[in-house]
Amino acid sequence: MSDALFTDLYELTMMAGYHVAGRSEEPATFDLYFRHLPAGVDLVVACGLEPVLDYLQRLRFDDRDLAYLRSLDLFRPAFLDYLADLRFTGDVWAVSEGLPVFGDEPLVRVTAPLAQAQLVETALLNRICYSSLVASNAAQLVACARGKPVLEFGARRAHGPDGAITGARAAMVGGCAATSNVAAGERFDVPVSGTQAHAWVMAFDSELEAFRAYARAFPDNCLLLVDTYDTLAVGVPNAITVAQELAADGHRLAGVRLDSGDLLALAQETRRMLDEAGFHDAKILASGDLDADAVTELEQAGAPIDGYGVGTSLLTARRDPALSGVYKLAEIGGQPVLKISGNPRKTTSPGRKQVWRQDSGDVIGLADEDLQGEPLLVEAMRAGRRLLATVPVAELRTRCRQ
Amino acid sequence: MSDALFTDLYELTMMAGYHVAGRSEEPATFDLYFRHLPAGVDLVVACGLEPVLDYLQRLRFDDRDLAYLRSLDLFRPAFLDYLADLRFTGDVWAVSEGLPVFGDEPLVRVTAPLAQAQLVETALLNRICYSSLVASNAAQLVACARGKPVLEFGARRAHGPDGAITGARAAMVGGCAATSNVAAGERFDVPVSGTQAHAWVMAFDSELEAFRAYARAFPDNCLLLVDTYDTLAVGVPNAITVAQELAADGHRLAGVRLDSGDLLALAQETRRMLDEAGFHDAKILASGDLDADAVTELEQAGAPIDGYGVGTSLLTARRDPALSGVYKLAEIGGQPVLKISGNPRKTTSPGRKQVWRQDSGDVIGLADEDLQGEPLLVEAMRAGRRLLATVPVAELRTRCRQ
Repeated sequence: MSDALFTDLYELTMMAGYHVAGRSEEPATFDLYFRHLPAGVDLVVACGLEPVLDYLQRLRFDDRDLAYLRSLDLFRPAFLDYLADLRFTGDVWAVSEGLPVFGDEPLVRVTAPLAQAQLVETALLNRICYSSLVASNAAQLVACARGKPVLEFGARRAHGPDGAITGARAAMVGGCAATSNVAAGERFDVPVSGTQAHAWVMAFDSELEAFRAYARAFPDNCLLLVDTYDTLAVGVPNAITVAQELAADGHRLAGVRLDSGDLLALAQETRRMLDEAGFHDAKILASGDLDADAVTELEQAGAPIDGYGVGTSLLTARRDPALSGVYKLAEIGGQPVLKISGNPRKTTSPGRKQVWRQDSGDVIGLADEDLQGEPLLVEAMRAGRRLLATVPVAELRTRCRQ
Repeated sequence: MSDALFTDLYELTMMAGYHVAGRSEEPATFDLYFRHLPAGVDLVVACGLEPVLDYLQRLRFDDRDLAYLRSLDLFRPAFLDYLADLRFTGDVWAVSEGLPVFGDEPLVRVTAPLAQAQLVETALLNRICYSSLVASNAAQLVACARGKPVLEFGARRAHGPDGAITGARAAMVGGCAATSNVAAGERFDVPVSGTQAHAWVMAFDSELEAFRAYARAFPDNCLLLVDTYDTLAVGVPNAITVAQELAADGHRLAGVRLDSGDLLALAQETRRMLDEAGFHDAKILASGDLDADAVTELEQAGAPIDGYGVGTSLLTARRDPALSGVYKLAEIGGQPVLKISGNPRKTTSPGRKQVWRQDSGDVIGLADEDLQGEPLLVEAMRAGRRLLATVPVAELRTRCRQ
C-alpha cells in the first residue's frame, strides 16, 4: 500500500465532487497554520516539513489503493482513472524547520490544482501538527533546564512506533541532546543515550553485584541506576564502591541516575556523597515522569542535577496533546477567499500570503508585497519538484536554539 | 532498517551486559501491565497484541542495523555477532484484544531467554499502551453516546501517520462504527466515513451551489456540512432545498453535519426543520472538538443527534495521553523475583502468573494453580512460533462490546 490512502475519506469525496464539476484542475491556495499556542509553551517551533516534502514527492495511488477505492462502491470509474495518473504538481512555500512561529501565520502554503491541494490536507496536518508540538515542548523543556542536557526517553509511551520516531526527531529539533530510541538515532544521525533499568538490578542477587557486572561490560560508559532499593542507604554507596573499583583499574564512573523519590533532596545528598568520596566529575542524571514544571522547580531550587531524562510528558505532549493546526482555503481560480465566522478565531484571511519577521514581531501580507524584514516562507517545491534540500537534524537543532 | 532497532538503547546495553556476564540465555519472565486507569475511563480495553505478535515474529537485526550499532563504538564484536543470529524464541501469553482488564493484572506475559525478553520491552509497551488507551477511550465514548455510532475522525491530529492508523484500529476495537482514515479502512477492513469540509463550501460561489454539486456527485451518499456560514438561517434551508431536488430525482438526502456552535440547540432546530419539510429519515451528525463530556451532555439533554464524529480527543487521548504501562521482571532462572518499593504502587509481584475472571472480579494466581473462572491469559506464541490466529478487527469490536 502506498501513502496515498493516508487521508480522510472526505478529501477523496471532495476530489470526486470537483472531478464531476470539472473543477479538479482549478488553481487553489491553502494555508496551514495553528490557531493558538498549546498549553504550557511560549512559542511553537515549526517542525515536520521534511516528512511533508517526502510525502508529496512520492504521492501516487498504486493498484492496490485503487482496487480498495473501487471496492467502496462510492467512486465513478473516470475518477479512479484520474487518480491512477495523479501526481503532486503544486508549489509549496514553508517556514524552515526549527524556527519559531506564532498563531494565525502560515507555516506551509500549498498552491496546486484544487483536487491535489485538497487531497494532501490530512497528511500535511498530521505531519506538521505533531512534530511542531513536540519540538515546541522540547524547546520549552530545554529552557526550563537552563540549557542542561534534556534526553528524550519517550519511546514506550509514544503513540505508536512512528509516533516515537517522529517524536524523537522533533524533540531533537526542539533542542534535546539525545534520544533513547535507537531507530531514531540511526535514521536521523543523532546521539542515543541509555544505560540500565530496574530489571537489570533485580536480575542479580545484589545491587552491588549488578553494578559490578555493568561496570565490567561498560567500564568507560558506566552510569548506574541507584534507586532500585534505597537510593541513599545502599544505591549511592554501592555506586561509590564501584567507582573506586573502576578508578583502581584506570576508569571513571560516568555517574548515577535517580529515577524516583524527592529528586531535589536525593540529588543534593548524592552530590555530597560523591564529592566526599572524591568523584566530583561523576554526573547526576534525573528521570521519572518529569515534565517542564518539575524541571523548573528543580532548577529554581538549584538542584545539583546534570541532565534530565524526559519521556512520557514530552512525546505524548501530556499537557496538551494536540496542536490545533488547520488547513484553510485562501484563494481559488486566482480569487481570494474569505470565511467569516461568528467565532472570530475561525475567520480565515484571504489571498496568497507571506510572513515577514521584523524586530517588533511578524507581519503577514500578500505574497507579492514587498515588506520590511526577512520573509519566513521559503520556496520548498515548485511544480511538484522539490527545491529545498534536506537539512540534517543536528543543524535544525542549532537553528532552533539560536 | 528492520524493526529491531526500535528499542531504547538501555535494552541493548543491558543485553550486552548479560552477554558479558554469560547470562543472556537464562530463562526470564516479564509481566506487562498498567498501574492505574487513565483519567476519564472506567476500564481499560486490552488492545495491541496483533502488532506485538507481528513484531516478535519478524524480530531480527539486519546488516544495516548491525553496522549502525557497530558505529556507536559501545558494543563488543562478540555481542554484535550474537545479535546477528538472534531470533525471538520465547513464549507469550496474553489477554485477548477487546477484553476489559484492570490495573496490576498482566496483559502480556513473556517468558524467554533473558536478553530477548529484555530487548522487546520498549516495542511491547509502545504497541500495547497506546492501543489500549485509545480502545478504552473509544469504549467510553460509545457508552456516553448510548450506543449511537461514534466515528473516528482523528487522523490529522494523531501523533504521526502510524499513530493515526494504530489509533484508528484501536478505536474500532473499542467500538467506533467507522473511521475517516482511508488507509486504516483498507488495512483493517473496517468501514470508512466522510463527506465534505468547509473548504468544499467555500470553493463555490454559494453554499447552495456547493450542496448541489455534492448531490450531483453523490446523490445516494449526500450528507451536507451546514455550518459554514449560518447553520439555521441558510445552511439547513439550503440542505432542505437540495433534499427536495434529490427527492424529485428519486434520491434521498442522507443527512447534515453540524460542526460548530451550540450543538444541542442547533440539532433540535435542525431536526424540527427537517421533519417539517418531511425529511424524517435525514440524519443529523455532530462533530467539532467533541469529547466524552460533550457527548454525555448532549445525550443527557436528549439531543436529536444520530451520530458523533470524534477526532482529536479520541486519537490523542486528550484527557490523559499516556497509559502507565510497565514491563516488570517476575521470574529469573526459575526463581520468582520481587521488588519492594517505598511506594506500594511500584512494588512488583513475583512469579509466573495467570489471571482468572470470576463473577466477583479477577483473581491473580500462579500459572500452575487451578483457580475458579476463565483464565484470561491465553497462549499466543510458543518457542517463538505464533499460535494465536489473527482476529479480524470487526470481530474484536464485537468482543469488546459484549
